[in-house]
Amino acid sequence: MLTVEEARERILARFSRLNAEDVPLPAAVGRVLAMDAVAGESLPRFTNSAMDGYAVRSEDARGASAEAPRHLRLAGEVPAGRVYEGTVEPGEAVRILTGAPLPDGADAVLQQELTETGAGWVRLLAEAPAGNNLRYPGEDVREGDVLVPAGAEVGPAEIALLASAGIHPVRVTRRPRVAILSTGDELAPLGETPRPGQIRESNGPYLIAAVARAGAEPVPLGIARDRAEELRAKLEQAREADLILTSGGVSVGDYDLVKQILTEQGDITFWRVRMRPGKPVAFGTLSGTPLLGLPGNPVSAAVTFELFGRPAIRTMLGCRQTERPVVEVVLDGQNIARGDRRHFVRARLDSRNGTLVAMPTGDQGSHIISSLRGATALLVILEGEGQVCAGDHVPALLLNDALPWGME
Amino acid sequence: MLTVEEARERILARFSRLNAEDVPLPAAVGRVLAMDAVAGESLPRFTNSAMDGYAVRSEDARGASAEAPRHLRLAGEVPAGRVYEGTVEPGEAVRILTGAPLPDGADAVLQQELTETGAGWVRLLAEAPAGNNLRYPGEDVREGDVLVPAGAEVGPAEIALLASAGIHPVRVTRRPRVAILSTGDELAPLGETPRPGQIRESNGPYLIAAVARAGAEPVPLGIARDRAEELRAKLEQAREADLILTSGGVSVGDYDLVKQILTEQGDITFWRVRMRPGKPVAFGTLSGTPLLGLPGNPVSAAVTFELFGRPAIRTMLGCRQTERPVVEVVLDGQNIARGDRRHFVRARLDSRNGTLVAMPTGDQGSHIISSLRGATALLVILEGEGQVCAGDHVPALLLNDALPWGME
Repeated sequence: MLTVEEARERILARFSRLNAEDVPLPAAVGRVLAMDAVAGESLPRFTNSAMDGYAVRSEDARGASAEAPRHLRLAGEVPAGRVYEGTVEPGEAVRILTGAPLPDGADAVLQQELTETGAGWVRLLAEAPAGNNLRYPGEDVREGDVLVPAGAEVGPAEIALLASAGIHPVRVTRRPRVAILSTGDELAPLGETPRPGQIRESNGPYLIAAVARAGAEPVPLGIARDRAEELRAKLEQAREADLILTSGGVSVGDYDLVKQILTEQGDITFWRVRMRPGKPVAFGTLSGTPLLGLPGNPVSAAVTFELFGRPAIRTMLGCRQTERPVVEVVLDGQNIARGDRRHFVRARLDSRNGTLVAMPTGDQGSHIISSLRGATALLVILEGEGQVCAGDHVPALLLNDALPWGME
Repeated sequence: MLTVEEARERILARFSRLNAEDVPLPAAVGRVLAMDAVAGESLPRFTNSAMDGYAVRSEDARGASAEAPRHLRLAGEVPAGRVYEGTVEPGEAVRILTGAPLPDGADAVLQQELTETGAGWVRLLAEAPAGNNLRYPGEDVREGDVLVPAGAEVGPAEIALLASAGIHPVRVTRRPRVAILSTGDELAPLGETPRPGQIRESNGPYLIAAVARAGAEPVPLGIARDRAEELRAKLEQAREADLILTSGGVSVGDYDLVKQILTEQGDITFWRVRMRPGKPVAFGTLSGTPLLGLPGNPVSAAVTFELFGRPAIRTMLGCRQTERPVVEVVLDGQNIARGDRRHFVRARLDSRNGTLVAMPTGDQGSHIISSLRGATALLVILEGEGQVCAGDHVPALLLNDALPWGME
């Protein structure tokens, strides 16, 4: 039996980053940058005012106070988006709004709350030392800085940064096309009533949602019944895919049909991976397209997709981080026995007085779909003897990447 | 000056849950349930096998071992998706596949790894006590259980659960339409070169992405220049919106134009909120549509959207949790002075040996757009004297909800 690491290494060796394409900036949300986005100019681009107030020469404000105001001539104004044409001469002030460029001659801004004004004059009620209320070029970003690195995902903050620097369109990695096929006579498709002995199909809908969340484009192929011609026809539709995900039919001995078709057209390896849930996993290629065969149990399908399918997609996307972040958490709840397979326990994280605690989401059987709901982490219970006890530190995969990732 | 709580309370009082609509299950990802999804049947629906193996009567397997196997007649088979027509009689076994319904008469399954078979017979090499390898109805979900409560967001796990229970279509809350308008002569739109004194517009693209992430439908209105007729025309386009977001023009004294139009057609209140960044916030209604005026500084716009705009959207969606979860974290980095306004410090969280630590993302000026990137939390530095020191516990808003929320 392979370890989880061995299986993942063999799978990921078959994938590499896909081609890039240019998209308009607003369409880049959720996409992954294919190259570093580099600032072509500094941000701010010019020295500007942080306040609504008056641009002055700091020496004109020296010693100013409410008791001893300094009286200056109001020489003009500079609204945001304009440039003051003249120069602020000694004894002069220029009305300035937030974000407007500092006029020549001035070296400080006094906010309007500390002034009094009338027709053609302004009185400074406080000092305005050089640099007061000013923002200088490059304080945010310097020309040549990497704004967002290749392999980073674009979210709202990245959009703000890229828009501020005028990066548009944006070069992102093409979205992998992932074909999703459920197999088995026991499956009733969405919207149909199961016959006796059947169950409602859930892996297809689950994987469609999970594949999209991973950043790929799902290509749903529906359900293939256990008949050679139907399976062959469905797989034919996956020719253009970058990855085929199947679920079901990979446990002992009941896969002959699929195996037969796959060996005709490609190669397929069945593995047993030392993990729980999700022991049986198939991997191979079909007419050159990688195929990952997930188990049929819903929880097993979800966990093996997390451990093998999502990293394959993230590798095709060229993500900086293809795996979920792993952090240390403190187990809250019943003790968990170790076994000869690595156990991935669905858990919900919480913070108690700054400590990160994990509560398993109930019955961990591979048919307990409700255990997926509310899980924000997979606790990693390593192979071995004994048990992990409440209060012990445990590594956990963060299912929505929320904690430590971000700026790299 | 209002506190953050007072401002939020006044804003949220103007919103309530929107109408519901039915969508096909696969389209429900990212939507919010408008009513409890209740299981109409138990899951599993019938007693079934957890393994590929043989359905037997447990008394026939009593005392079986590799040394003393029990020999049974192979009476038939039940693949997944079928029902065995007969009854398993004493001395008989029936081949059964994972997920197939347990045949009448049998009360246990022995996995095939613990058997030997030949034509018409099977030998049990181990005992199979009653209930062995069986999954019973309702182990996952019982009829009448709430699968997913009203107000919960639908993710892949919810999709799996709803599909398994045959909930399709799904009743979700209509997506709020949020009009987004940036104001100011200083803004160069995406794709245009800024004139001297101009900056590139980033709040519009940011808010479009953030509004979509919050679950609403953004309606981009572009940039309104500081001319009455242009502003009036843009706002006219927002008539059908559930919320209008503007950015810019809410600082002291430079808002007369907008104020004039708004007071003509509705009501508008300008507030100063005791917070940093983001002091100036406007709120009112325009021809009956709520309008939230955010500050123009990109960081201020982002933080005030988080604190006031997103909760308004989540209230319209009927979310169980309209606010970001707040957890306690430990400050890592420089001490932060308290002031007379509540300070929201962008920070990145990490877990160190089970402790949740927060590292501020650099310069916290309201023009430092790069401080948004990589932030996974807003540290809440309460008003007051003194400072928060490295190692102190601080409350933090989790920007992507990852930690404690989930199953409720």
